[in-house]
Amino acid sequence: MSEAGDMGLVVVGAAGRMGQTLIRAIHTMPGARVAAAIERPDSAHLGKDAGELAGVGIINVPIVDDPLPAFAKADGVLDFTAPSASVEFAGYAAQARIVHVIGTTGCSAEDNAKIAAAARHATIVKSGNMSLGVNLLAVLVEQAAKALDPEDFDIEVLEMHHRHKVDAPSGTALLLGEAAAKGRSIDLADNSVKVRDGHTGVRKTGSIGFATLRGGSVVGDHSVILAGTGERITLSHHAEDRAIFARGAVKAALWARGKKPGLYSMRDVLGLS
Amino acid sequence: MSEAGDMGLVVVGAAGRMGQTLIRAIHTMPGARVAAAIERPDSAHLGKDAGELAGVGIINVPIVDDPLPAFAKADGVLDFTAPSASVEFAGYAAQARIVHVIGTTGCSAEDNAKIAAAARHATIVKSGNMSLGVNLLAVLVEQAAKALDPEDFDIEVLEMHHRHKVDAPSGTALLLGEAAAKGRSIDLADNSVKVRDGHTGVRKTGSIGFATLRGGSVVGDHSVILAGTGERITLSHHAEDRAIFARGAVKAALWARGKKPGLYSMRDVLGLS
Amino acid sequence: MSEAGDMGLVVVGAAGRMGQTLIRAIHTMPGARVAAAIERPDSAHLGKDAGELAGVGIINVPIVDDPLPAFAKADGVLDFTAPSASVEFAGYAAQARIVHVIGTTGCSAEDNAKIAAAARHATIVKSGNMSLGVNLLAVLVEQAAKALDPEDFDIEVLEMHHRHKVDAPSGTALLLGEAAAKGRSIDLADNSVKVRDGHTGVRKTGSIGFATLRGGSVVGDHSVILAGTGERITLSHHAEDRAIFARGAVKAALWARGKKPGLYSMRDVLGLS
Amino acid sequence: MSEAGDMGLVVVGAAGRMGQTLIRAIHTMPGARVAAAIERPDSAHLGKDAGELAGVGIINVPIVDDPLPAFAKADGVLDFTAPSASVEFAGYAAQARIVHVIGTTGCSAEDNAKIAAAARHATIVKSGNMSLGVNLLAVLVEQAAKALDPEDFDIEVLEMHHRHKVDAPSGTALLLGEAAAKGRSIDLADNSVKVRDGHTGVRKTGSIGFATLRGGSVVGDHSVILAGTGERITLSHHAEDRAIFARGAVKAALWARGKKPGLYSMRDVLGLS
Repeated sequence: MSEAGDMGLVVVGAAGRMGQTLIRAIHTMPGARVAAAIERPDSAHLGKDAGELAGVGIINVPIVDDPLPAFAKADGVLDFTAPSASVEFAGYAAQARIVHVIGTTGCSAEDNAKIAAAARHATIVKSGNMSLGVNLLAVLVEQAAKALDPEDFDIEVLEMHHRHKVDAPSGTALLLGEAAAKGRSIDLADNSVKVRDGHTGVRKTGSIGFATLRGGSVVGDHSVILAGTGERITLSHHAEDRAIFARGAVKAALWARGKKPGLYSMRDVLGLS
Repeated sequence: MSEAGDMGLVVVGAAGRMGQTLIRAIHTMPGARVAAAIERPDSAHLGKDAGELAGVGIINVPIVDDPLPAFAKADGVLDFTAPSASVEFAGYAAQARIVHVIGTTGCSAEDNAKIAAAARHATIVKSGNMSLGVNLLAVLVEQAAKALDPEDFDIEVLEMHHRHKVDAPSGTALLLGEAAAKGRSIDLADNSVKVRDGHTGVRKTGSIGFATLRGGSVVGDHSVILAGTGERITLSHHAEDRAIFARGAVKAALWARGKKPGLYSMRDVLGLS
Repeated sequence: MSEAGDMGLVVVGAAGRMGQTLIRAIHTMPGARVAAAIERPDSAHLGKDAGELAGVGIINVPIVDDPLPAFAKADGVLDFTAPSASVEFAGYAAQARIVHVIGTTGCSAEDNAKIAAAARHATIVKSGNMSLGVNLLAVLVEQAAKALDPEDFDIEVLEMHHRHKVDAPSGTALLLGEAAAKGRSIDLADNSVKVRDGHTGVRKTGSIGFATLRGGSVVGDHSVILAGTGERITLSHHAEDRAIFARGAVKAALWARGKKPGLYSMRDVLGLS
Repeated sequence: MSEAGDMGLVVVGAAGRMGQTLIRAIHTMPGARVAAAIERPDSAHLGKDAGELAGVGIINVPIVDDPLPAFAKADGVLDFTAPSASVEFAGYAAQARIVHVIGTTGCSAEDNAKIAAAARHATIVKSGNMSLGVNLLAVLVEQAAKALDPEDFDIEVLEMHHRHKVDAPSGTALLLGEAAAKGRSIDLADNSVKVRDGHTGVRKTGSIGFATLRGGSVVGDHSVILAGTGERITLSHHAEDRAIFARGAVKAALWARGKKPGLYSMRDVLGLS
């Protein structure tokens, strides 16, 4: 682990779109610095300066392909890569006994088990969505779903994303649906309605509906609606900028510094778990 | 046709939910009065006072089952019944050369042809949605869709209704989608996307998407979103109360009084066609 | 106290607008029945059937002016009257050891002390806003305000009401502002901004802004916006209908049945305190 | 004028924030190319590559200080500078008989007269807000305000901007209020309500209300609400990104190519005047 002072962070996947956003986020936030920048051995960007590539000017951190020496000298790792890579990085973070912030999505149960094992020695914060706002919203949704009687209030999850998104509903919409289901102590898969077209019949009591909008360059809008007789509560999150995920990851790393090894979530970071 | 003064209106289907709403709307709006109230011969409400049944107190208009004498003495008819009944009433309105406001939905091409024929002698205003606001919105949507390049702006139609609604998307959502398609000179059926679930691929340029929310007691919310790169226009209508359809019908009747026979729409009533 | 089965509720002020709304709410909600209907001795409605007056048909509960025999046979009382009357009714509820739901506003500190004293023997639920949704929203706003750093997130409260409302901001907007201030452990009065016009200068960090819209027949819309860099959370309540306050009162009574005497709030009813 | 093919555009003020945004917009939009980049003679950026400075890589267009040779070889000019400069550029555009898109604000009546004179030979498009969406919204607001009776529908204008904005309401909110007033043939200044606090009394029929929210990094949200009895129309614009003004300017230039000399507005570009 490095000396005191700014937290030294390794960015893995440093030449990708999210990697560059992480470099920029670290650059603008107090208390953190880029300690190293890692890419795959076949990357065309090896040797380039990570800051210059990210558009913040030269920071004297060349992009390299060997994570081990980088992890050994750093305080933490920011990782929005792919499941197999994240599992590998978790192992290295455990060896180095440092912080590992994982924003990677699509991990299998097996991947998650390996990450949990690594968390015996690494301080891991893992979330499918690193935005402070979305994670707070999920907590509020869970509470609202718990407080309101399913006989009285219907829950709907609405999301909108840009025209290039290829799947629906978004991972964040599902995360919010899970929060609602947890508040009601039901299983989301058994109670979700994702398609409405033609003759649908009346709404089934207790179900959780999803609706999806696509268009333009929308970064990500999510609303959870709790609709009762005569009143409606709407809990929404609007993302202006993908940089919120990078800033949330840096926030998580700063929060995790000095915490005991373990597997944490953004709820822990928000002080809401 | 009756003497000058308040416009005398016949309400057909007067004991039904919409019929009662029409009676109340006429009762509260200046310039109109209930001239007669018609129900089917097997109605349990024949002989009752139409005002008392609608909750506005006795208005000395008993519910009767014979439309012909009623039409002969009236200035207009308000009709939210069923296609076959509306076709029949249009014929009577033509004989009486009076105004016929038709809010009935589900008419076939044949029904519409008969109504058009009746409009040679009756002054008919027909719309699938009698709300001033929805009809204005449709005009604005058509213009917006025409002005904005489909390569740049994606169009989405979102609606929410109460938990008891059994079909999706709503008739009004489709009406707004038709307005958007007309603005772009395309066919809605060939370009609409009504389901998004799982792997959808990127949004098809020029398509018109629909999304449906169901819950609580929502009377009817509709939004048309035009989403471009970096900006979004949203054109919305929020109905608080089913009475807007009745008030729109009375507005249409008052507008139509004295107009030449013909088939008009709510756009004509709004002065926007 | 009455036998088991539906909870027998006394409506005080039964002939007023809110009293009639309460009668209708009890009529439509399972688990409760109208046990008695009370009005002042000078009411023109004494002797009328409370259900018929409220428009739900005859329920065989005549409006009477003596609360004592009514309270003795009932399980609870619903009360949206005036401070002095509510204090008196709280005393009777204590004698009868029953539930007393108080939606009356404008109570003085002295009134509240008397009500608290009555709560040694009566099970009292008191709130300035009986809507489940608004009370839940206030809890969520407090939590969100607590979780998010005032340096990062600005709080704004927006409300819209009908054109006849004569004051601004609404009492509920202020209640939500108080919840936000409580979450941040600050004083609302010292930190609220209610007017913005002309040269305002930059927004003061930590302030809570209010904005007011007026128009149409809007029953009451409220939003609390927490706006950070790159993201925004919006927590909203939309009231369709004043009946939600009556429904909330019935819910509160059903929740309070069988609870120990004491002074409760709607947060207790929601299980969130 | 240059040969056929992509429209060659001169960017004046090319090293400023808006100039760089224009370079990026031209770079990403088909049909246009950067023909030249002009700065003041004292600019520290003379000689630099305009593309590299704007972050899109080298485009082999050095920043120079002499507009005349550049205008002579170009098809159009994009200009978000200052009134005096824009007047001068309009004269050069007239000499070159090319397109001049002016997004400069704050022009005096005298400046506007000179620009109008230049428009005898130049094809000028001038607007205080170059966003396609805002200009379209203004047209729709004017029509809606014209179609709906002020006795029935109240108009409110709501806007939200980032925490650093120092004035209220925004210029665009006022532009939308002007559009509403024009639709009703009334004077905005005589009918606008910009402050509501404490006892306001009932809403004055025919007035146009403004409400202002400030917080976070919001680029610019505007809504015009037309609220009637039982229904509400909301017409909104959401800006994600200041680049929409640059994109609108490029769109205006492409539209204007080949049009006769004259003074045009964004309404002409939208085909809505």
